[in-house]
Amino acid sequence: MIFDILTLFPEMCSSPLGASILGRAIEQNRLTVRAHNLRDWALGRHQTTDDTPYGGGDGMVMKPEPVFRAVEALKKVSPASKVLLMTPQGQPFSQAHARRLSGESGLIFLCGRYEGFDERIRQSMVDEEFSIGDFVLTGGELPALLMIDAIARLLPGVLGRASSAETDSFSDGLLEYPQYTRPVEFEGQKVPDVLLSGDHGRIAQWRRQQQLLRTWQRRPDLLSTAPLTDEDRAFLETCNRSDSVIIQPK
Amino acid sequence: MIFDILTLFPEMCSSPLGASILGRAIEQNRLTVRAHNLRDWALGRHQTTDDTPYGGGDGMVMKPEPVFRAVEALKKVSPASKVLLMTPQGQPFSQAHARRLSGESGLIFLCGRYEGFDERIRQSMVDEEFSIGDFVLTGGELPALLMIDAIARLLPGVLGRASSAETDSFSDGLLEYPQYTRPVEFEGQKVPDVLLSGDHGRIAQWRRQQQLLRTWQRRPDLLSTAPLTDEDRAFLETCNRSDSVIIQPK
Repeated sequence: MIFDILTLFPEMCSSPLGASILGRAIEQNRLTVRAHNLRDWALGRHQTTDDTPYGGGDGMVMKPEPVFRAVEALKKVSPASKVLLMTPQGQPFSQAHARRLSGESGLIFLCGRYEGFDERIRQSMVDEEFSIGDFVLTGGELPALLMIDAIARLLPGVLGRASSAETDSFSDGLLEYPQYTRPVEFEGQKVPDVLLSGDHGRIAQWRRQQQLLRTWQRRPDLLSTAPLTDEDRAFLETCNRSDSVIIQPK
Repeated sequence: MIFDILTLFPEMCSSPLGASILGRAIEQNRLTVRAHNLRDWALGRHQTTDDTPYGGGDGMVMKPEPVFRAVEALKKVSPASKVLLMTPQGQPFSQAHARRLSGESGLIFLCGRYEGFDERIRQSMVDEEFSIGDFVLTGGELPALLMIDAIARLLPGVLGRASSAETDSFSDGLLEYPQYTRPVEFEGQKVPDVLLSGDHGRIAQWRRQQQLLRTWQRRPDLLSTAPLTDEDRAFLETCNRSDSVIIQPK
């Protein structure tokens, strides 16, 4: 899969892709990430990529021509690539989008700076618009890198074991259960006995209940869409009824 | 303001901070960002930072001791720093959090890899847990960089003009209006006449209505919390009633 990043600051994108899981996957040619300088497609002696907004106001707006020419050039290499615009006005990016986009052959990420993009870029060159969250950033580069990370880890062979991608947060619509490792006691806090019991049935039940409990406490909005069993529902009933929830059943 | 990043891959964090607005602000000493290798605080000959989970299961869990020792060391330098854990289980990061956290003297970002952190890290060392969105990443480094970007741009003197931080998306609870710059006509698409009219009253009204319209179309969830005038409400009424909304009133 080919990821193209169109930006005024391609040098911003190098280090997060060089290390750890993504770095290794790129080295093994499981994916290709290229950061391009939008200015290379700008016209005129000054290679201008932005200009003042019509109608007045602060800030600068990204001009349509350089983006148009850049997308045209990149699509010559990977004609089936989808063009994604990074913008606070886009649809909030989710794990479902990551899964769907991991099936594409290529993605072109348009990253803006300044006040944003000329509206005609959205209208004529962009397949989808994505937002990473309801906050304001200095540019679209970090959101693009984040989306590439989320999508690339779903590609075959990128994670060491296939199972890792399946058991993560959100893959079953719930938050994860608490994890513990050695030592058994740290600063007076002990690992819950059930995890030391060796009883796999009880451990699985405890973990599922902790997932439900944590989601109920922190992100109840997720419970309306998560696939739940009758047993799950019965447990959540007790959460709703009880004033004194047992956080860590031993 | 001091930002400390605790990670197993400090080299991941260099390039996004070197360029553009943040790079300049760091150069001007308006903020300090330091990425530390968690392994420097690990014990034993192998400097282990992770171990297998109690109770079984795939993946590795970050051990409590190295994090404890690292946080202790960093707090000697900036005792008032708040410790933030990057985790999909955290509260969803928003612009309101960015504003509040920009008032702190320092922030320590704990970035995990593998299956996550030992639960006792959350319980005894962490002030707040943040999630960037409902998707899974290979680690917490990109979310930390993203939060640093969102927070740092609110610090005095980081953006060129103070006004820029105020007129951005979400600062008034609505999505932004469409922007246009030269040329007047691009690939058959013209800039809306109102923006060329020079009539500042009409332009301001058009932009406000476009903000409302765009938010109503794309993110109606934001309308319930955005501060709206009577005029805004009257306009939204017409959106709700009409089957043929005029997208671009001339």
